[in-house]
Amino acid sequence: MKKYNLVILGATGAVGIEFRKILLERNFPINNVRFLGSSSVGKIIEFGDRKIEVEPVTDDSFKGYDIALFSAGGEISKKVARKAADSGCIVIDNSSAWRMEKDIPLIVPEVNPQDVNWHNGIIANPNCSTIQMVLPLKHIHDAARIKRIVVSTYQAVSGTGINAIDELTIQTKKILEGGKASIEVYPHQIAFNALPSIDVFLSNGYSKEEMKMVNETKKILGDDSIQITATAVRIPVFYSHSESVNIETEIKITSGDVKELLHNKEGITVVDDPSSHLYPLAINAQGKDNVFVGRIRDDESIPKGINMWIVSDNIRKGAALNTIQIAELLISKNMIMN
Amino acid sequence: MKKYNLVILGATGAVGIEFRKILLERNFPINNVRFLGSSSVGKIIEFGDRKIEVEPVTDDSFKGYDIALFSAGGEISKKVARKAADSGCIVIDNSSAWRMEKDIPLIVPEVNPQDVNWHNGIIANPNCSTIQMVLPLKHIHDAARIKRIVVSTYQAVSGTGINAIDELTIQTKKILEGGKASIEVYPHQIAFNALPSIDVFLSNGYSKEEMKMVNETKKILGDDSIQITATAVRIPVFYSHSESVNIETEIKITSGDVKELLHNKEGITVVDDPSSHLYPLAINAQGKDNVFVGRIRDDESIPKGINMWIVSDNIRKGAALNTIQIAELLISKNMIMN
Repeated sequence: MKKYNLVILGATGAVGIEFRKILLERNFPINNVRFLGSSSVGKIIEFGDRKIEVEPVTDDSFKGYDIALFSAGGEISKKVARKAADSGCIVIDNSSAWRMEKDIPLIVPEVNPQDVNWHNGIIANPNCSTIQMVLPLKHIHDAARIKRIVVSTYQAVSGTGINAIDELTIQTKKILEGGKASIEVYPHQIAFNALPSIDVFLSNGYSKEEMKMVNETKKILGDDSIQITATAVRIPVFYSHSESVNIETEIKITSGDVKELLHNKEGITVVDDPSSHLYPLAINAQGKDNVFVGRIRDDESIPKGINMWIVSDNIRKGAALNTIQIAELLISKNMIMN
Repeated sequence: MKKYNLVILGATGAVGIEFRKILLERNFPINNVRFLGSSSVGKIIEFGDRKIEVEPVTDDSFKGYDIALFSAGGEISKKVARKAADSGCIVIDNSSAWRMEKDIPLIVPEVNPQDVNWHNGIIANPNCSTIQMVLPLKHIHDAARIKRIVVSTYQAVSGTGINAIDELTIQTKKILEGGKASIEVYPHQIAFNALPSIDVFLSNGYSKEEMKMVNETKKILGDDSIQITATAVRIPVFYSHSESVNIETEIKITSGDVKELLHNKEGITVVDDPSSHLYPLAINAQGKDNVFVGRIRDDESIPKGINMWIVSDNIRKGAALNTIQIAELLISKNMIMN
């Protein structure tokens, strides 16, 4: 089996940790591997049988490497991704820096694998909230054409990074001890609260996170006619985003049809027997690969509507796993010339 | 000033505690007061300068009393409310037992005070999630006729009662200590999780809580033509429900119009400057009387739509306060004949 030279940029972040775990779990065919970072430079990291020192990014970091998995934020990605691609290393980037660029595909392998064909050295990994939503919606769109989506999210703190996981832990402890929470990562206390604020706000009153869901969904599903409105909310959960998704379709589709349609589809698990207390849950999705869909029911307020509850591990399928699946897709299509 | 003989049924529950607090805060004109309970019978409770023993419910419990505030669940309410009303005591009931009865008004004093005129001895207090939603929606409906509502809730555990507050506390501590949460009140762990399950499920796949929002909203706004679909979700918050509300109107209304419309309206506080981190928050609404509205923005997915974020203390405006405001409404209309 052919093996590949791999770079991870941001190897010690929340997503970076998951990159390393999933690469080993899936026996990703690795020849040389290089970990790049900034604040963690010099740190020695165990990776399977190897011990790897985190290196700083230089102009030569990507020479001789086939694939780079980026999860270090948009700023550094904008600086180095083009250079990496120019040196022959295909970049799969987790930040929002490249997602809406016309010449850069935005890929969820189960949804739009064909878009990998037109990459120019950089492929964008979508926003976590978008990835888990488009997986089931793709099948409904194919079957019944989605006209409109109204989505409200219940997002985990791990999406912000390790410091946010610490903040939720520390604040929660403090409050249970009767103290006052100190606030560093989020603009307000996240423990025992719900923050309708993710990423910065734009002039139309929506947050960037909300507009990512609007714009990325259209690009991934390849259909600008789908109308989407989103409310993105952070809640005190460590891992897995939940989403309340309401859709209106062109063609009538019943909740029964949707359950059948999604049954056994790649990357999707239907969990839907609410009377037996079975529905997707954040704590159950944690550490799992699939997107969990349940509470599928006919929206009785319109003739052709469906409500559903979509849950997935935001760090796995929402980030690290999807990125690695894109790399696997490139390999399976023989698109890596080394 | 005329004073009234008052009964509280369920005086030691989460809502009962709030009843007592708010009655004192608002100097409710009380002559005699009687506390009724079941498991708390015999308990002595301080109430202002008085010390009151919790009594069991008997056939004579309501004789000579003017107003009874009920918050002891639907079962006991069904058993005794009619008897209490027959003995001349007006019952204001917090359970769902009477809400959809044709001859029983369902009242939010800022929204449909006129409905108090046709009561027959029992008045129902709406579901907490419904109360906070209809307050701002009433004004929008009057101005622009609401055609459809899509709502997703983020509900606090206090809605379930004191045992649920304890469960969230105990589970959270246990998990932070590295242990496993034990589950008693809810079907699943509520700490660091989101449960798309409130109350029992009905044959249409919706929970009773979700259908309460659908049916009660129509009754309170006095308009069966409003179409509503709801997703009710419990999150690890102690007090205050948050709601992501999407509406479609008959007449075009902009987010600017809505902000102006809701400004300084009775019972409503607009908190809406997201770029300065100002939006309604559960922890800020706790202990407050008003319903907080923010994140008001044009829904760009339809020509006439608005998104908003509505937060209120579910135990105060969502239960105890609204009940007491109904009693005050009866008094102000001279509808109590003692």
